[in-house]
Amino acid sequence: MSEEIVVIEGDGIGREVVPAAVSVLEAVGDFEFVAAEAGDAVKEATGEALPQETYDTVADADATLFGAAGETAADVILPLRTAVGSFVNVRPARAYPGVEAVRPETDLVFLRENTEGVYAGHEDRLSDDLSTLTRVVTTSASERLAEYACEYVDEQGKKGFQVVHKANVMRETDGRFRDAVVDVADEAGVETEEVLMDAFATRVCLDPTQFDVVVCPNLAGDVLSDLAAGLVGGLGLLPSANVGPDNALFEPVHGTAPDIAGEGVANPSAAILSAAMLLDHLGYGDEAENVRTAVESVLEDGPRTADLGGDAGTEEVTTAVLDRLD
Amino acid sequence: MSEEIVVIEGDGIGREVVPAAVSVLEAVGDFEFVAAEAGDAVKEATGEALPQETYDTVADADATLFGAAGETAADVILPLRTAVGSFVNVRPARAYPGVEAVRPETDLVFLRENTEGVYAGHEDRLSDDLSTLTRVVTTSASERLAEYACEYVDEQGKKGFQVVHKANVMRETDGRFRDAVVDVADEAGVETEEVLMDAFATRVCLDPTQFDVVVCPNLAGDVLSDLAAGLVGGLGLLPSANVGPDNALFEPVHGTAPDIAGEGVANPSAAILSAAMLLDHLGYGDEAENVRTAVESVLEDGPRTADLGGDAGTEEVTTAVLDRLD
Ligand SMILES: CC(C)[C@H](C(=O)O)[C@@H](O)C(=O)O
Ligand SMILES: CC(C)[C@H](C(=O)O)[C@@H](O)C(=O)O
Repeated sequence: MSEEIVVIEGDGIGREVVPAAVSVLEAVGDFEFVAAEAGDAVKEATGEALPQETYDTVADADATLFGAAGETAADVILPLRTAVGSFVNVRPARAYPGVEAVRPETDLVFLRENTEGVYAGHEDRLSDDLSTLTRVVTTSASERLAEYACEYVDEQGKKGFQVVHKANVMRETDGRFRDAVVDVADEAGVETEEVLMDAFATRVCLDPTQFDVVVCPNLAGDVLSDLAAGLVGGLGLLPSANVGPDNALFEPVHGTAPDIAGEGVANPSAAILSAAMLLDHLGYGDEAENVRTAVESVLEDGPRTADLGGDAGTEEVTTAVLDRLD
Repeated sequence: MSEEIVVIEGDGIGREVVPAAVSVLEAVGDFEFVAAEAGDAVKEATGEALPQETYDTVADADATLFGAAGETAADVILPLRTAVGSFVNVRPARAYPGVEAVRPETDLVFLRENTEGVYAGHEDRLSDDLSTLTRVVTTSASERLAEYACEYVDEQGKKGFQVVHKANVMRETDGRFRDAVVDVADEAGVETEEVLMDAFATRVCLDPTQFDVVVCPNLAGDVLSDLAAGLVGGLGLLPSANVGPDNALFEPVHGTAPDIAGEGVANPSAAILSAAMLLDHLGYGDEAENVRTAVESVLEDGPRTADLGGDAGTEEVTTAVLDRLD
């Protein structure tokens, strides 16, 4: 029986890079693809950026590959993270040989808390002058993230991870986050290094090799992983996984890139690397490695898209990846 | 009558770089210096990191030069920002010729909201599992920041500024911030470009020349200015001003650097550049320019401290700056 993978292209270059990634998945395995819709175009047509049907389909699937949504991004991706029960957003950020990078030695994985912090989103308009947002931190969500982090470093044969927070200012909430994460790691015999969020931003630019697995609250993970994207040469290379207990959603970190959408020139690497993470999730480790190696090989000396200084189109790059699969 | 400048060395390398900056101030003007205490050492001795006397002295002064505090940093600097009535934290981040930088073309000024956001600091422990923090955004504080930003770009002969926010997630609070800032700028005929906080982190690494004056909520300003510090070669070069209506506090962005404290090897540039901002604030524009030019000249081809790859001490660098004053 073949696994069911939901495919949501979304808007903009999502419609170009997701088909590219699907063709790579088709080349390495036997999957059943189920198309679903979300984003600006669906909203325009139906009034809803995320139809209930899409939500349900994603919630019931084994895995979902998502492209990007435009103006409606938050209305689409935040509920979809909930649909798969995701508690961690896994964001590898590494530089590739052959790709110009501000910091070519960057090789990081961000493990971003994916349910709370400022994203819990309780906001109030208290007066004409004043609005508030309730930032939420629980020990249970922090512990769950930490347990995942401990397993992750164990699998990778690493000794420990870095914990990013701003507990010198957010003493109670980020203090709770830090304490919960450090306690779980201590019990598991995993080393931790605490780094303040602002200090991390400076230090990662000066020397990214100081860090490897970086455990963060939600917004810190959002911003710092995007910072790392800048260090490795742009968002066109970064895949991500929204992981839940038995379902997951995979998406390139980039957006819809309206400036180049529809021209067939988008870099499919991030989407294809997201598909590789999806293969890992479904238990196809060899196939995942096969895809990653092919992408790396193309990045090193194959055709490249404009964001990487080349003039190849999405299709040419995708064909090169397919050609270099084992 | 000479202006009264409060001087707080604080802890660690604060005790080395602040005297260096004071000697530069003495060389260019006739000021009355009033020493005050704050930080870990005072807390150890008296139980209080920020004695009421220090708070009052700072509140009553024309300007304060502050070094750094250790573990007690937040207990010292946050109330001191209140003491001077500071509503904006001005953080220039530029690369200097002669100093190795990840992005040598960086030349940015962050205007960071200095009173609210997550720093308003209302936190609650609601249960054994759950803590919350109330993030506060007011139209009045946002407008005040925007008015300052409009005057600032006008003085600098620039056309506009960038507004950083995360209003796609924090719709009500950062939405309020964005709307207030953009409205004030529109009325003043100042151009604005909106940039999402995460996108800013990527884009500033890829090409910092896209930005120049960056207006941010409190935590965004904290993290993104530290990111810019990484791009220009480290915290040793960044001065800052906490500006209020008629009082202000100046501090290097760096901390106490416990690893090198007491050895006389700290880079005094950030503290001396903070003193230059203080001179500007007191109306000594020519003297400020004189100091900045001397620091730049030393950074270009003078003795340099270890953080910049040299082996000179704090004193040697300071003497070189003094020698190169007009
Ligand atoms: C679109 C937005 C809501 C989202 C986020 O902030 O999480 C995006 O920036 C991301 O990182 O996937
Ligand atoms: C010490 C800390 C409270 C402070 C802040 O977060 O504002 C520091 O990081 C800074 O930027 O001056």
